[in-house]
Amino acid sequence: MKSEQEEHYVPRATAKRLPVYYRCLKKLADKGVKRIKSQEISELTQIPSATIRRDFSHFGELGRSGYGYEVDYVLEVFHEILNVNKIVNIALVGVGNIGKALIANNFRRDDNMKITCAFEKNEEESGKILSGVPIYSIDQMRSVLSRENIHVAISTVPSEYSQESINMLVDSGITSILNFAPGRVVVPSRVDVRYIDLTGEILTLVYYDGKLLPPTIKR
Amino acid sequence: MKSEQEEHYVPRATAKRLPVYYRCLKKLADKGVKRIKSQEISELTQIPSATIRRDFSHFGELGRSGYGYEVDYVLEVFHEILNVNKIVNIALVGVGNIGKALIANNFRRDDNMKITCAFEKNEEESGKILSGVPIYSIDQMRSVLSRENIHVAISTVPSEYSQESINMLVDSGITSILNFAPGRVVVPSRVDVRYIDLTGEILTLVYYDGKLLPPTIKR
Repeated sequence: MKSEQEEHYVPRATAKRLPVYYRCLKKLADKGVKRIKSQEISELTQIPSATIRRDFSHFGELGRSGYGYEVDYVLEVFHEILNVNKIVNIALVGVGNIGKALIANNFRRDDNMKITCAFEKNEEESGKILSGVPIYSIDQMRSVLSRENIHVAISTVPSEYSQESINMLVDSGITSILNFAPGRVVVPSRVDVRYIDLTGEILTLVYYDGKLLPPTIKR
Repeated sequence: MKSEQEEHYVPRATAKRLPVYYRCLKKLADKGVKRIKSQEISELTQIPSATIRRDFSHFGELGRSGYGYEVDYVLEVFHEILNVNKIVNIALVGVGNIGKALIANNFRRDDNMKITCAFEKNEEESGKILSGVPIYSIDQMRSVLSRENIHVAISTVPSEYSQESINMLVDSGITSILNFAPGRVVVPSRVDVRYIDLTGEILTLVYYDGKLLPPTIKR
């Protein structure tokens, strides 16, 4: 394996694919598969095998040419990298439709990942407990997050309140935010924000849908 | 502007940022801003200005060095590229928690994008109308999608049924799919699938959260 120093430079695109690889290898290991080639991983993940080999190379010598990868070993390495054993407690801000759906599902297929508290401005919601998750008022955010030592949050607050919500999260010690409002927010460099942009995803799909079809069968 | 032929080669990463640029420029135009520099767009979108200039260059001469971009003109070009005026009717498969949240929100801030029909295996849901969206049984999929000429779908079906759901969509003429199950599915090359992987997003956030902090303040 490379030194920890070098690991810092794993490209973001590679990091994004790690969970996909991890789940694929986990399924294979559960089925008793011991050894696998990049071409086979490619068929299962729909990621080109050259990309897989390049991605894997960031984590040292995980396999040998012509022999493939030892599933258990690669899994162990990715497991460690992804901190899969670490319990991730997540705070949710905004208990509207999407927020309620997230609480109801609550990463049920991932034992180590849980929304453990939620915050909502609407006083009709705060004070309730939904599927075991307590809903607090916004002004309790700082004390609850500090008490529960939570550093990861999901914001489902509408765009117009998004920056305000993210500011409060940052002030409360959150360093990783998944934001369901697509408008870019400003955060200190130590904070990482990822965006779920459903409208953007559909626009991108439709854009490709139109452009990649030969002109004659364009709708 | 470049010829249509050349436009085919817009990198996917650029295409993914187009909706972000579009929304940013739309907001500026609504505020009466006429001209803007890449540095200013960068501040608003949190995308590096060099990336913005490179992205914009794929669409021909949109601006001049030192002068910036004419907001209305760039907006017009992106508008056309993104087919923003085209009405996108979307089919939804799976009316669980996430499906219901999507129907309730239904892209309400985008007039041209709407979930217009939904399909659900559970017979307690099919036959109902939720927020104006009719819920059909799965075996009505082919006839409804063909009748309504729908080519874009969102699948919120759990991973274990995801491939089955996507096969049915493809057989029914769908060419663009947004899939809330992260497991990669196999589709013909004419079909484009994008994945919303919430667990993966959180894993990536936590991975970065751990690795990017200096060792001394690692949790």
